[in-house]
Amino acid sequence: MNINKESYLNDNLPFFKNLSEEEKTMIYNASHIEEYKLGELIYSKYKSCSGIVLVAKGQLRAFMSSLSGKEITLFRLFQNDICILSSSCVYQNLSYDINLQVEEDASLIIIDGKFFKEVLDRNLSVQNFMLEVTQNKLSEIMWVLEQVVFFSLEHRISDYLINEHYLKNSSEIYITHEAIANDLGSSREVISRMLKRFEKDNLIEMGRGYIKIVDIKGLKLLCK
Amino acid sequence: MNINKESYLNDNLPFFKNLSEEEKTMIYNASHIEEYKLGELIYSKYKSCSGIVLVAKGQLRAFMSSLSGKEITLFRLFQNDICILSSSCVYQNLSYDINLQVEEDASLIIIDGKFFKEVLDRNLSVQNFMLEVTQNKLSEIMWVLEQVVFFSLEHRISDYLINEHYLKNSSEIYITHEAIANDLGSSREVISRMLKRFEKDNLIEMGRGYIKIVDIKGLKLLCK
Repeated sequence: MNINKESYLNDNLPFFKNLSEEEKTMIYNASHIEEYKLGELIYSKYKSCSGIVLVAKGQLRAFMSSLSGKEITLFRLFQNDICILSSSCVYQNLSYDINLQVEEDASLIIIDGKFFKEVLDRNLSVQNFMLEVTQNKLSEIMWVLEQVVFFSLEHRISDYLINEHYLKNSSEIYITHEAIANDLGSSREVISRMLKRFEKDNLIEMGRGYIKIVDIKGLKLLCK
Repeated sequence: MNINKESYLNDNLPFFKNLSEEEKTMIYNASHIEEYKLGELIYSKYKSCSGIVLVAKGQLRAFMSSLSGKEITLFRLFQNDICILSSSCVYQNLSYDINLQVEEDASLIIIDGKFFKEVLDRNLSVQNFMLEVTQNKLSEIMWVLEQVVFFSLEHRISDYLINEHYLKNSSEIYITHEAIANDLGSSREVISRMLKRFEKDNLIEMGRGYIKIVDIKGLKLLCK
């Protein structure tokens, strides 16, 4: 993909137009394009600070993982989204580890964290932007916590299948049980057991690598 | 309690010394002292924006609650702590509801959200402070999520009892099963069942309103 870095930064960073020429040059020079393939890990606890990540193309998943390999998805990033949580050098107070993985081949613009922080520290408009993005992320993570604590897994799987159905505009959802488990912070065994119950109750049919929704009303009842 | 508002703001808001005289006066005039008793709700989804809350004395608990009355503690606030999440008028992007309740009689300094936001919007030092506090809160909430998703309830209750033991410096912990449930995002029934198992395994003894730790090494083994 051919990306014009300058026009991308200009179009997608709300604060860019408020930067001085010097600051614009600084951000421009401190950023570079990287291409990633499906499944690749962009950032993890084993990698050092990757800086600010802008998604020019593709789709990413941010998740937490446990030592035993369990995962939970925190949020997804789509075209023109920005990820600041992968930048521990900008976010000095973050004491946890997140992972960032490619779900659709991606072109990313990475802004070096150290240079970004220099601009951040002296520009009100950048501070304001960062505060807003951080507040949004806090909201999203509160939402995940709320789901995990207050809703049964039955409810959450139904909700998940219904969402996928509307997102993909299809009653056949191509997804593995493990992927659902990793999104919802559960284990593959538990998800498979629950899906089998859904199948027994004639809510879904399962095939090799896909789940077919046969009774969406029934699934919706489980989310009441 | 006699609180000198000006010296309190000066001593406990890291950005206060960087404000202009006009901004200092603005924050001073927009803040007032409120006294709260144990158990009182300072802020909830049914109350409008309460502004920035500074704890001059006492202890508060921030928690989320479900429609069915289930709760999970997000963090606690102690003397000189600040709560920004209760200020939806400053935090326009927060789309969830938290509750703030008094755990020890409290004297609070409340800064009106609207005025605070005016200073925030034009002062780099205040922005910087807010970003830092928000990052910290994000970390704390990620930690809660990690606990809930990746650790068994057995592990979490053991960990909870051990922490209380060290915090209170006593092997007798005066707490109800419901309070533990509300902290951990579980139900009283589930907590009681698990504590009975702990008692049967000679890890604890239970009395009226208290839990006595009899085998802390055994509890620690459950947290491995």
